[in-house]
Amino acid sequence: MAIKGFKAAAVAANLRYKDRPDLGLIVSDGPAAWAGVFTQSVCQAAPVIWSRPLANKGRGRAILANSGQANAQTGREGDANCLRSAELIGAALGCPPEEIMLASTGIIGQQVNMPALAEAVPGLAAALSPGGLDDFARAIMTTDTFAKTAASECACDGGTVSVWGCAKGSGMIAPNMATMLGFVLTDANIAPELLRGIIREGADMSFNRVTVDGDTSTNDCLMLMASGAALVTGGPALEAFKTAVFTVMRNLARQIAKDGEGATKLVTVRLRGAASPEEALLAARTVAESPLVKTAFFGGDANWGRVFMALGRSGARFDPYAVNMDLDDVPWVRNGIDNGREEAASAVMQKTEYVLDINLNAGTSGCEMLTCDFSHEYVSINGDYRS
Amino acid sequence: MAIKGFKAAAVAANLRYKDRPDLGLIVSDGPAAWAGVFTQSVCQAAPVIWSRPLANKGRGRAILANSGQANAQTGREGDANCLRSAELIGAALGCPPEEIMLASTGIIGQQVNMPALAEAVPGLAAALSPGGLDDFARAIMTTDTFAKTAASECACDGGTVSVWGCAKGSGMIAPNMATMLGFVLTDANIAPELLRGIIREGADMSFNRVTVDGDTSTNDCLMLMASGAALVTGGPALEAFKTAVFTVMRNLARQIAKDGEGATKLVTVRLRGAASPEEALLAARTVAESPLVKTAFFGGDANWGRVFMALGRSGARFDPYAVNMDLDDVPWVRNGIDNGREEAASAVMQKTEYVLDINLNAGTSGCEMLTCDFSHEYVSINGDYRS
Repeated sequence: MAIKGFKAAAVAANLRYKDRPDLGLIVSDGPAAWAGVFTQSVCQAAPVIWSRPLANKGRGRAILANSGQANAQTGREGDANCLRSAELIGAALGCPPEEIMLASTGIIGQQVNMPALAEAVPGLAAALSPGGLDDFARAIMTTDTFAKTAASECACDGGTVSVWGCAKGSGMIAPNMATMLGFVLTDANIAPELLRGIIREGADMSFNRVTVDGDTSTNDCLMLMASGAALVTGGPALEAFKTAVFTVMRNLARQIAKDGEGATKLVTVRLRGAASPEEALLAARTVAESPLVKTAFFGGDANWGRVFMALGRSGARFDPYAVNMDLDDVPWVRNGIDNGREEAASAVMQKTEYVLDINLNAGTSGCEMLTCDFSHEYVSINGDYRS
Repeated sequence: MAIKGFKAAAVAANLRYKDRPDLGLIVSDGPAAWAGVFTQSVCQAAPVIWSRPLANKGRGRAILANSGQANAQTGREGDANCLRSAELIGAALGCPPEEIMLASTGIIGQQVNMPALAEAVPGLAAALSPGGLDDFARAIMTTDTFAKTAASECACDGGTVSVWGCAKGSGMIAPNMATMLGFVLTDANIAPELLRGIIREGADMSFNRVTVDGDTSTNDCLMLMASGAALVTGGPALEAFKTAVFTVMRNLARQIAKDGEGATKLVTVRLRGAASPEEALLAARTVAESPLVKTAFFGGDANWGRVFMALGRSGARFDPYAVNMDLDDVPWVRNGIDNGREEAASAVMQKTEYVLDINLNAGTSGCEMLTCDFSHEYVSINGDYRS
């Protein structure tokens, strides 16, 4: 897969992992429009602090991503290492460090292995090629069980615009690993201001709707770059372009949810009929993150009482006896009480993917969350005795 | 254990469980002052809806509690069953139903087994005795592994005032089981308005500080009754009395946390130095409820990165590099970075009880939460395939 105007590459720098790609680079041939959204955590990683103002400038040349060390809680040395990394890449590419965004995923509290990184930069730059996008996608993996990529395209005045994206992450996946990184590239010719709006709207309805365990990391980020190489004009194509970008983002988000640690099921919590958008989000998220609901998903237990318990404490306002719930096409709960379809409901819950549709009948706002079940493996992965 | 002015009893009514006490009654000899705090869930159980206005009246005679059915999401029939239960007890005691509060714990969505309850009432009333408090404590158990009681006393003008309490619950403990019930009795002679303030403050610093899995139920309640039989006057004794009540409540809350499903460790998250009381609570609760922190507790993994991750998303404001963390007396993190005491920190985390002290150094507000670890057993208990 290639996107006009971009080259990419990845190498095994052995920053922490041995003999697997852990350093990736995306470069646009010329200045690209870009935008980024980043974790809201108070404890932002150094690469987030480095990249955020650069994203806001609206234009840049390259993204360097590493796995192994998150460069979070690393103090002044961590910040200095960001500058040094950007300077090294900038020297290799012939551009200023401020045209390079950084993303990291790995252990919190440990410094980036700078000697190894510096040694790997020349080989990384030399390996850049239009076909290197999938290599980049692999370099950002930590304990993801598969590389997550997605692509889409749309017709615009004058031709076709392509969109490609990759992402990593699910729950914080092993001691000190950071979470969600997403990178979306396009050859569209589009202004940075428009990209900013698109990335926010897209993040909100995709990555921000995925919850594995409710925990967000110090390093989460989503970056969107547009090379302009498709040489098409804007206009009526904007909606088509947004659709293509959102399709890619939602696809990646779904893959992240599916790869949730120890997850055996992917559940869409479709919350409808809330009194306000805020309440729709609260209700959907509370259900999707409730440990008791998620263990019920794991056990395939058609236990609607737990869903009510989560809704009841979510902050959403509704009449408990107006609530309807469906599992796929099975009418599970009607008017707040059991609808006598427990066998059919249980059958749905044995599937690896299904929709839990909840209608609060308190308004017209809705929200969808993707979540997965809480299994023994989640506890094993995260409760490991090794430090 | 007995409290002057009260009698209690419990019987095996076989509402759902067989051959174990599941129906309990507390009766004051004369009108008692009382207060109650109840779940804020939008999906309030019928006994909560019944009891709340009665608690607000400030005076009553009796509390009837059952285990087996929560009488939640039971519609009009559930409400009617509350009235009927209170009428049955009222007839046996010779008092109006409005002088009887109700509490239930059990399966959500199933009606209370009224024939069995009605049959058990005469025997229950006949069994009332001053020594029946511990029987009552056992009747409210569901999958609690031990009956939870606590007692205290204080000196007042004219004599001694005694306080006794019992509670049940931990995480929502098996499919459809409700959570936290607490009952505190005293022979103090005290006005209802004072009891109201005491119960709110007490609940806030005890039961509301316990989190097993962040899930609160449809049935949570705490009731406080004062018989006045100690015949002591108020005045300078009020603070001593509050201390005695809070001691009992904190003791019960601690027992609840300790009995958390599958829990192997009891951890106090002591959050200090927050910029406001709200932020102190947010920070403490977010850390105490984070699945990744709790699995780290389970694994004994001295992983401070996860604590930062939770703090970072809590909503509290602070400088990440001003934060100090201690595990018991081990200085674990200083100024946001590792303090080189990993071995000693890990040793603390192997203990079954310890304190995680976090100082945000952003203000003067603090908050303590009691929590426990997330273990495989939690998933087993709650993810069981049986419906």
